[in-house]
Amino acid sequence: MSGNTFGKLFTVTSFGESHGAALGCIIDGCPPGLELSEADMQRDLDRRKPGTSRHTTQRREADEVKILSGVFEGKTTGTPIGLMIENTDQRSKDYSKISEQFRPAHADYTYMHKYGVRDYRGGGRSSARETAMRVAAGAVARKFLEQRLGIRIRGYLSQLGPIKAEKLDWDQVHQNPFFCPDADKVAEMEAYMDALRKEGDSIGARINVVAEGVPPGLGEPIFDRLDADLAHALMSINAVKGVEIGAGFDCIEQKGTEHRDEMTPEGFLSNNAGGVLGGISSGQPIVASIALKPTSSLRLPGRSIDVHGNPCEVITTGRHDPCVGIRATPIAEAMMAIVLMDHYLRHRGQNGDVSVSTPVIGQL
Amino acid sequence: MSGNTFGKLFTVTSFGESHGAALGCIIDGCPPGLELSEADMQRDLDRRKPGTSRHTTQRREADEVKILSGVFEGKTTGTPIGLMIENTDQRSKDYSKISEQFRPAHADYTYMHKYGVRDYRGGGRSSARETAMRVAAGAVARKFLEQRLGIRIRGYLSQLGPIKAEKLDWDQVHQNPFFCPDADKVAEMEAYMDALRKEGDSIGARINVVAEGVPPGLGEPIFDRLDADLAHALMSINAVKGVEIGAGFDCIEQKGTEHRDEMTPEGFLSNNAGGVLGGISSGQPIVASIALKPTSSLRLPGRSIDVHGNPCEVITTGRHDPCVGIRATPIAEAMMAIVLMDHYLRHRGQNGDVSVSTPVIGQL
Amino acid sequence: MSGNTFGKLFTVTSFGESHGAALGCIIDGCPPGLELSEADMQRDLDRRKPGTSRHTTQRREADEVKILSGVFEGKTTGTPIGLMIENTDQRSKDYSKISEQFRPAHADYTYMHKYGVRDYRGGGRSSARETAMRVAAGAVARKFLEQRLGIRIRGYLSQLGPIKAEKLDWDQVHQNPFFCPDADKVAEMEAYMDALRKEGDSIGARINVVAEGVPPGLGEPIFDRLDADLAHALMSINAVKGVEIGAGFDCIEQKGTEHRDEMTPEGFLSNNAGGVLGGISSGQPIVASIALKPTSSLRLPGRSIDVHGNPCEVITTGRHDPCVGIRATPIAEAMMAIVLMDHYLRHRGQNGDVSVSTPVIGQL
Amino acid sequence: MSGNTFGKLFTVTSFGESHGAALGCIIDGCPPGLELSEADMQRDLDRRKPGTSRHTTQRREADEVKILSGVFEGKTTGTPIGLMIENTDQRSKDYSKISEQFRPAHADYTYMHKYGVRDYRGGGRSSARETAMRVAAGAVARKFLEQRLGIRIRGYLSQLGPIKAEKLDWDQVHQNPFFCPDADKVAEMEAYMDALRKEGDSIGARINVVAEGVPPGLGEPIFDRLDADLAHALMSINAVKGVEIGAGFDCIEQKGTEHRDEMTPEGFLSNNAGGVLGGISSGQPIVASIALKPTSSLRLPGRSIDVHGNPCEVITTGRHDPCVGIRATPIAEAMMAIVLMDHYLRHRGQNGDVSVSTPVIGQL
Repeated sequence: MSGNTFGKLFTVTSFGESHGAALGCIIDGCPPGLELSEADMQRDLDRRKPGTSRHTTQRREADEVKILSGVFEGKTTGTPIGLMIENTDQRSKDYSKISEQFRPAHADYTYMHKYGVRDYRGGGRSSARETAMRVAAGAVARKFLEQRLGIRIRGYLSQLGPIKAEKLDWDQVHQNPFFCPDADKVAEMEAYMDALRKEGDSIGARINVVAEGVPPGLGEPIFDRLDADLAHALMSINAVKGVEIGAGFDCIEQKGTEHRDEMTPEGFLSNNAGGVLGGISSGQPIVASIALKPTSSLRLPGRSIDVHGNPCEVITTGRHDPCVGIRATPIAEAMMAIVLMDHYLRHRGQNGDVSVSTPVIGQL
Repeated sequence: MSGNTFGKLFTVTSFGESHGAALGCIIDGCPPGLELSEADMQRDLDRRKPGTSRHTTQRREADEVKILSGVFEGKTTGTPIGLMIENTDQRSKDYSKISEQFRPAHADYTYMHKYGVRDYRGGGRSSARETAMRVAAGAVARKFLEQRLGIRIRGYLSQLGPIKAEKLDWDQVHQNPFFCPDADKVAEMEAYMDALRKEGDSIGARINVVAEGVPPGLGEPIFDRLDADLAHALMSINAVKGVEIGAGFDCIEQKGTEHRDEMTPEGFLSNNAGGVLGGISSGQPIVASIALKPTSSLRLPGRSIDVHGNPCEVITTGRHDPCVGIRATPIAEAMMAIVLMDHYLRHRGQNGDVSVSTPVIGQL
Repeated sequence: MSGNTFGKLFTVTSFGESHGAALGCIIDGCPPGLELSEADMQRDLDRRKPGTSRHTTQRREADEVKILSGVFEGKTTGTPIGLMIENTDQRSKDYSKISEQFRPAHADYTYMHKYGVRDYRGGGRSSARETAMRVAAGAVARKFLEQRLGIRIRGYLSQLGPIKAEKLDWDQVHQNPFFCPDADKVAEMEAYMDALRKEGDSIGARINVVAEGVPPGLGEPIFDRLDADLAHALMSINAVKGVEIGAGFDCIEQKGTEHRDEMTPEGFLSNNAGGVLGGISSGQPIVASIALKPTSSLRLPGRSIDVHGNPCEVITTGRHDPCVGIRATPIAEAMMAIVLMDHYLRHRGQNGDVSVSTPVIGQL
Repeated sequence: MSGNTFGKLFTVTSFGESHGAALGCIIDGCPPGLELSEADMQRDLDRRKPGTSRHTTQRREADEVKILSGVFEGKTTGTPIGLMIENTDQRSKDYSKISEQFRPAHADYTYMHKYGVRDYRGGGRSSARETAMRVAAGAVARKFLEQRLGIRIRGYLSQLGPIKAEKLDWDQVHQNPFFCPDADKVAEMEAYMDALRKEGDSIGARINVVAEGVPPGLGEPIFDRLDADLAHALMSINAVKGVEIGAGFDCIEQKGTEHRDEMTPEGFLSNNAGGVLGGISSGQPIVASIALKPTSSLRLPGRSIDVHGNPCEVITTGRHDPCVGIRATPIAEAMMAIVLMDHYLRHRGQNGDVSVSTPVIGQL
C-alpha cells in the first residue's frame, strides 16, 4: 500500500500540499450510526490552528473542514467520509530563489532525490499543513471511542526546550497557549519564547499523550503491537524524532523488580509498561511521549547547496512556528485516537467485541 | 492485514510459539537471482543464539533454519521463501501452576483478555523466541542490500543498565559477549552482570543501529516515512519501550541553528536527522537507538493475580536472560534491514531504480 | 484495508454518494513526472457521461473533474493526486416513499442489513455514479501506460441483449452511441432500444476490453494473478455478473490440443489464454469480457417489501439507463488500466523494470 | 502486499513448489477458540487428492498436513496457524530437456520473463500442487462458518466437456469420481474420460459452488464487493478462465423484469443475483460458477520455442490430470469459504456482529 494511508480497518488516506487548492482525506471503515458534523472536527482543528497566540506562526489558515460524503441525516453511514479543507491563505510570493535551493534540514533535498521534481511552494506535500487532516480524522475516531467505549485521550506539552512541566494538572492544559499542564511554568515559557523569537531561532519540545479507559485486549502481537503502531503513528508526525511508551528510555537503568508492574486484585501497582504488555493493552492508561525537533525554517542564514550542487546560504523568510511542538498536542492526540480506533475494529473483527470475562483490574 | 506480517513489498509473515513444533516464516516479494543458502541466515541466527556466554540464558536452541521453498539451484526465484526452525529443546515441564497465574509484566494477562485462551508454555506466541525468524528474514534483506546497493547495517549495545559505552570501535563489537563497542567497559559489564545474576534481578539496555550507504530517496512521505516504519519495526521487538532517530530526545533542548544539518558541496556537516529528512533517506547514515526493558521473568517473587482474580505470588523458574538487550543487537539489525529492503522495492516500484541525477553528498 | 481502495502500489481510494456534495478519489503511488491535466481525464469522463444520446439516461451530470493536489507545473509530483467532481444535478425530490421501500434487485435491502442505515437518495453510495471516479483515475493510468510502455487499452460493446456484434472494426466503436464495433448492427440496436424504452423495460449487455502492447511478465502468481486481479476489478463494476479471460467459458468444451496456444519463433498461433499464462502476462493482447445485468430501476411495478417487512409494489421513477452496459465501456477500460498500472509498478518493485532478455514473441 | 497472501483479516499466505521440500501456509487472523485438528483439514485434502480414481493423475501425494502452531489443547489460540505438507513423491527425473523448453500454454514462458529464472521441476511454483494449501486453509474457514454461523458450502461439477449435469442431487456428488450431481450422466462421463485418456488429450469443465445460510450484510461495497472478491478468489485457481455469479452471462439477454429478484415477506422469488446485491450478501444462497480450461500437459506434441528462441516440439510425459476440473471442486469450495470468512470478520470489525434488526427473508 502507498504511504498516504494509515490504518488497516479504520483507514485515513490524505492528499494535499501546503499551497495547493485544497487538503483532504478519506476515512474508510468508520462504523455506521455515529453522530457526526463538521463541528466535531472543527473543535480540534481550532486547537491546532496557527495564529491563536503570538507564540505560533501568524499565518492565517481558516482550516474550515467540509464533510463531502459518508454522513446522512447527521449520522455516519459506514461508507467513506470525504473531508476537505480549502486553502485560503496562499499569498502570491516569489519562489524563484527558494525553488533552486535546498533548505537545510528540510525535505527539499530528499524529495528531489526521490521524485526528481518537487513542489517548492511552502514545502509542498512535506509541509506540516498536512497534519490538519490527521486532526480532522482523529476527531472522528476520538468521538467514537469516547461515546462507545468511554475512552478519553488527552495530551500536553511536558517540556519546551529546557523548561520541564513538573505538575500534571489537566485543567491547566487549555488555560495557556502551550498546552502546558503546569501553571507555574507558563510565565517562564512565555519569556523563553519571546526571547527566542527575537533571536530568530527555534526550539524543540516534548509532548505526552495519555488514553484512559482503553479496554484490555487491543493490539495485535508481533509486528502490529499496539505500541509499535503507536510508534509508527507518532513518528510519522512532522518533526518527531523519538517515541517512548511508558517508562521509555528510563527502563534502560531500571531493574526488573523495579520495572515490572505488579498486580493485585485491586489493580496494577505502577504503570512502567505504559498500558501495553506484549503489544496488547492492559487496561491501564496508554502513555506515550514524543520529542519534536526545532523547526529549521529560520531567518538566521544556514549553509546549503542548490540544485546544481553549488554552495549557497539559505534564509527562510515567511511566517513560521519557532516551536512546532506547541501546536503538536492535538496532532499527537489525533494519531493516538486513530491507532486505538483501528485496533478496536481489528480486535472486534477477529475476536468479537471487547469483553470482561477475565478479571479487569485498574491502576491503584 | 493481520499483525503477523511486516512490510508491503518485501513481506515477512511469521508463525510459531515458544514450545510448539516449529517456528517459521514466509518471505514474499524477494527479488529473484539472489544467491541464498541456509548459511547466510545461520550466521546471524548464531549471533542471536542463547547460551554463547554465561550472561545469557543457558537454554539450548539449535536454531537451525531450513529453506523450504523459493530457492532453486542456489538462487532465489522470486517466489515465496519458506523458512522453518524446528523446536528441539522443549523440556517437559509441569505447567500446572503457571497456567493459572498471570506473571507480572508479561503478556499473560493481556493475551487472556484478547483471546480468552493462551498457550502458557514458555509464553507461547509472546515469547521472544519468535525473533529468531526476524533474524533469518533480515539476513536475506541484508544480503540483498549489501550486494546490490552496498548498504552496511551494524548495531551495538551502547548502554547496559548504568554503564554507557563511550567509544564506538566497530572492531570491538564482536570481541565481547555484549556487542559492546567500547573495550574499556567490558570488564565492568561482566562484573555487573555477574552480580545481577546472583541477585536474581534483571536490567535494561540500549541498542544502536546504523545503516551506511543508503541511497537518498528511500521512504514514503506522510504515514510511511522511513523513520516511522523504522519506529514501527523496532518498537515491535519484544521488550522495546523507546525508539529514537538521529538526535532523538536530545532535540528537545536543541535550537534550530544547532539541530539543522547544514550542507556543503562536500557533504552534510552533522547528522542530527539520523539520515532521514521529511521521512526520506538523505544519503547520510540512518541512525536509530532503542531502549529495552529488563526482563520480568525473575526468580524474585512478584505480586500478581490468578485467572480467578485471586492474589498470588509469582516466581519464574527456568532459564532466562537477565538482560534481554544483550541478544537484541542482531534483531534490531534485522528489522532495519527489512525496513530498508521494503522501502527500496517500494521506491523502485513507483519511481524506478535509485538514481544520482541530483547531487549526492555525504557526511564530512 | 477497507473496501473503497483498489490496488497495491497504484491505489485508488474513492468517496461519494449519488446525491452528496461531491464525488472524489485519491490516487496514491502515481509515478512522478507524468504530464497531467484535467483534460486528460475529461475525455474519458465525457465518453461515460449520460445524456449523450437518447439511449442513455437524460440526467445531466457535468462531471467536471478538478485536480486538487499532486500535480505541479503540469506534471505529477509522486504525491497523492486528489480529484473531485462536484454534484450539480441534484434535483430536490420527494424521497418519502422510496425511503421506506426496498427496490427489488437493488442494494437497498443489503445496505440496510449491513449498516442499519442507508442514504436512500438515488441509491447513495451504491449508485453507479461512483464509477465516474474510476474513469478519472483510469485515465491517469492509461496515459502513463500509453506514454511509457506503449500499451493501448480499448473496449467495445460486443452484445446488446440478443444482438451480437459480428465484426470488430475499431474505427466504428466511436461512430455510434453503443460503442458497437459492427456498423451493420447499429440500426438493429437503435430499434431494439427504442422499443425497450417504450416498454419500460431494460436489458443486459456484454463488453469486451483488450489491452495491446502489454510486456510479458506482469502479474503476481498465486492469489494476485493478473487475471484474478482483472476479475476482481471488473466484477467490482456495478451490474457485472460474469468475467471471462481469453476463451472464457468456451474452454469448457475445448480439448487441450485445441485450447493450448502454440508458439513459434514468429509468435503465438492463437490466444485462447487471453494474454495471461500462469497469472502472468505473455505479451499477447490481454482480452477480457464481462456481462452486465439489466438495470432494475424500472417504471414497471415490482413486488417487494418495506422496512417493516410488509409487502409493497415498487415503481422506480426518475431518469435511468435502460441498458447500463451502453455506458460501461469506458469504465471497463479504466479498471483494466488501473490493474495493469498497479501490476507494472509491482513488477518493477520486485524485479526491476520490464526487460526483453528472454525472446519476446507476438501473435501471428 | 505480495501476491501470495489472500484476505484482509482472515489471511492465507502460502509457499512451496511442486518438487520442493514442502508446501505450507500461514493462516493469520483466525478467531480463537475454534476446535481444530489435522483431521478437519485432511478430509478436504483427501477429496482433492490425486489417484483416487483412474480419471485423475496417478501421482501419489500423501498430502498429509501438519499443524505447526496456533492450536493449543485442541483449540485455535488466535495466533497464526502454521501448516505444512511435506513433498514425498518427488521422483528423480531427468529435467535436462524440459529445462530449456517452454511448454505451450504453461507458465514456463511467462515465469522466465518475469523472474529471469524458473524452477522447471514439475512447474515449480506454477504447479496446481499449490492448491493443496488452499484446501487446507479453506477447511479452517469452513469449519468456523459452519459452527458459528450455520453456513454450508458445497460444490459440484456441472459440466465435463460437452456433457452437462441436468439434475442437482447433492447426495450424488460424492457417489462418483467426478463430483457430478446427476447420476444419469456418470456413465457417459466415464466413457468420455476413458476415450480421452486413450487419445492423450484433455478437456475443460465447469464447477458450481453454493454457500447456503450466509447472513445478509457481508461484503464491502465498491471495490471489495463480495462478488468481486469471489471473482478474484476463484479466478486465482489454476486453469480458471471464467467466473459467473448468479445468472452470470445469461443476464446479457435477460430483461430487467425477468432478471430482478422480486421480494415478498415470505422471501425472494428467484435468485438471478446469486445472493449478492450491490456487492453485499442478501441472505440468499451465494452461487458461483467457474470454467476450467483443459490441461496443456499432453503427450501429444505441441509446437513451441526454447529459451534460445528456437522452435521445438514439446511432449509432456509424466502423470497428468486429463481434466483438471475433476479435482477442482474442493478447491473452489475452499476459496469461497476463505472469502466468506474474511468478509464475516471484516463486517464484524466495522459493524459489529451480524444482526437481524431488519427483516430477513429467504428464498421461496
